[in-house]
Order: sequence, then structure tokens, then C-alpha cells
Amino acid sequence: MHNLINAFPLYNFLKYCNTISLEKVILDCGAGGSNPPLSLFYEFGYETYGIEICEEQLEKANLFCNSCNMDLNIIKGDMKKIPFINEFFSFLFSYNTSVHMRKEGFSQALLEFYRVLKHGGLCYINFLSEDCDTYGKGVQVGDGEFKQIEDNQEVFYCHYKDNEVEQNFYGFEIIYKEKRIIQRKIDEREYTSAYLDYILVKK
Amino acid sequence: MHNLINAFPLYNFLKYCNTISLEKVILDCGAGGSNPPLSLFYEFGYETYGIEICEEQLEKANLFCNSCNMDLNIIKGDMKKIPFINEFFSFLFSYNTSVHMRKEGFSQALLEFYRVLKHGGLCYINFLSEDCDTYGKGVQVGDGEFKQIEDNQEVFYCHYKDNEVEQNFYGFEIIYKEKRIIQRKIDEREYTSAYLDYILVKK
Repeated sequence: MHNLINAFPLYNFLKYCNTISLEKVILDCGAGGSNPPLSLFYEFGYETYGIEICEEQLEKANLFCNSCNMDLNIIKGDMKKIPFINEFFSFLFSYNTSVHMRKEGFSQALLEFYRVLKHGGLCYINFLSEDCDTYGKGVQVGDGEFKQIEDNQEVFYCHYKDNEVEQNFYGFEIIYKEKRIIQRKIDEREYTSAYLDYILVKK
Repeated sequence: MHNLINAFPLYNFLKYCNTISLEKVILDCGAGGSNPPLSLFYEFGYETYGIEICEEQLEKANLFCNSCNMDLNIIKGDMKKIPFINEFFSFLFSYNTSVHMRKEGFSQALLEFYRVLKHGGLCYINFLSEDCDTYGKGVQVGDGEFKQIEDNQEVFYCHYKDNEVEQNFYGFEIIYKEKRIIQRKIDEREYTSAYLDYILVKK
């Protein structure tokens, strides 16, 4: 049976990837966790690679791989310095990772995404919008950047204005852009979250 | 291998359904076409039923069912008069169907969705927003309702304002609401489409 991933926008990204006539080789930057979205691409015959900076998330992903007998090739690595050669990948995604990274750091990562992608290759990335109801909470540490306390832990959140990040897209061209504003009702409380999603092609 | 459906928001709806402790019995209203989204629920062990008013779409769905050896139970039927008894289903969805229906007709369908759902059951529906770039094109036949000509055929489009449809939700409660604004670049042209998605629970 298919493993349902939680990173739903990647079903759409998969559809885009399936239309491109490049080798099916894909990298996930921030690939860890207990339900790695690379599994979706693995099921569709992609050669998968992932990098993950956090040991705990790496371990969770490896447990998943072992229990499902699915070798997703997830290794320790920093997306600001991707340990692969130029133009090795046809496809790359980084889901929800910008949420917990400084803007400057993610801008560096974008240069790396560009470097490791083949020409004509596709890249999926997404960002938290300032339209979230969490925007502005906590201690401000930069433009749209806040430190919040959750369960006695400090958590960093980074929000973007509409179009703001596009100035860092270098030689990428936007072929798909989506703004999602989501309202959820949980235990009689309402939560609003908002995302900016992009699919880019390397020209 | 998993069959990738095009109705991506239903991956999220499936996740919601999987959390509810009711029998896994689901109805798709407008279930036809060459890639029926019911196949996703079938793969996850749901007992599936579908109704489809258009013979051509029904035939396409049956071809899919035969070629995949998947009996999805899709029959001819009108969602304004669903041929099933009260409270027969735990889950129901109707993807993109409101787009081509008069507002009054869809309002009738909503009453039927309510009737055939069990208490605590979930319903997914979506609507075209007035923020689409096609809004206002063609001949106006009602509030937000237009007839357009596509490939020499008359096609009816129905757009809704934010929150507009919620007055017709009767005994449903909204637990998930999403507005999606999508910009696609195809052959150097840009297209904007916008949707309002809902997951409702029958109280």
C-alpha cells in the first residue's frame, strides 16, 4: 500500500517532475523525520537522495527506511553546503525547511540548490507567509524572524512577504507559484497558517 | 505502484478521514473521468461508491476500473438527488464539481450531502474563487455565473466570493478551510486560478 506523506504539495511537484524528460534523480534537503516524503518519489521509481542536518531527524528517517525496507539514501548534510557535485540532480525539494532558517542562510541554500541541479531541472521550495496568525509573536531577531517559546523550548520562525524571496531566485524561473491560507479548527480554537509555494526551473 | 491522482487536496482529506473512527465508507459525487480520485481511498481500504451524471465521464471511469482491476462502484446518478439512503456514508467528497454547476443546484446538492452522511462524518467540497483571472469572462447568467466559449463549446463557470457559500452549510461545521491562489506559467503565458476548499463535519 502507498505510504501517505504529510507534505501534500509534493504530490503536485511529483506530477511536474513526471513530465520532465531528465533522469529520475532527486534530492530532498531536510529529508529526515518519521515519514520522509522521499518515499513518494521512491515508489514512483526515482533514485532518491536526502540530506539532513539534525541527528534526531536522521535517526527517525533511518528507522522508517529499515522498517519499510526502502533505501532512500538519506545522509547527514547541510543544505548550505550540499555534499554533491554540480548538476548531479534533475529534481530537488526542500519542504518547510525555510520556516526554521534565517533568511540569509536560506538564500545561501538557494545558490546550492541551483548549483547541484541540471539545466531544465525542477526545484520545489516553500515559505511561511506573514499572513500566519503566529506572525509577530515572540522576540524579533530580524525582518520577519522571531524566536518563540514552545514547550519550554526556543523555536525560530521565519516569515516572508508575498514575492519577497523571488529576488533570490537567480537563474531560476518560476513556473508554479501558490499562496495557501489555511484555517483549522482544533478543540474549538481556530488557527491560521499561510504558505508561499514555488516550483522553479533552472534555465 | 500507487496511482497518482490529480485531485491533490484529497490527499489531505484522506488524512482527515483516517483519523475518524467511523466505518470506512465513502462517496464521490462527480466520480467519473479517466483518473477517478476514489482509487486513492480504495488503496487505503475504503469501501468506495461514486455517482456521475455524465455518460462519457462514467465510461472513462469504468475503463480505468477495468484496466486496473479496481471495482470503485461508480454508477450513474445526480448529486442533487443521491440514490442512497440517509446516513449511509461516513465520508463524502465532490471535487471541482461546483465549478460547472449553478449556485442553486449546488446548494441542493449540499442538502443531499448532509442527508447521506452519518453524524460525525466528513465532507470535502471546493469552489472557484472570484480571484481567478477567468472571472467575469463570457456572458453573465447569474451572480458569479458565466458562460464561456472554449473550443467552440459553451462551458459554464461558477465563481464564489470568500465565505459566500458558508451560509448554505446548514448543520455542517467547518473544520478546515483553505484558500489557494495559483499562478502557472505555460508557454510564456501566465494563468491565475483560485480555489476555496472546505472540510466539513456533520454535527
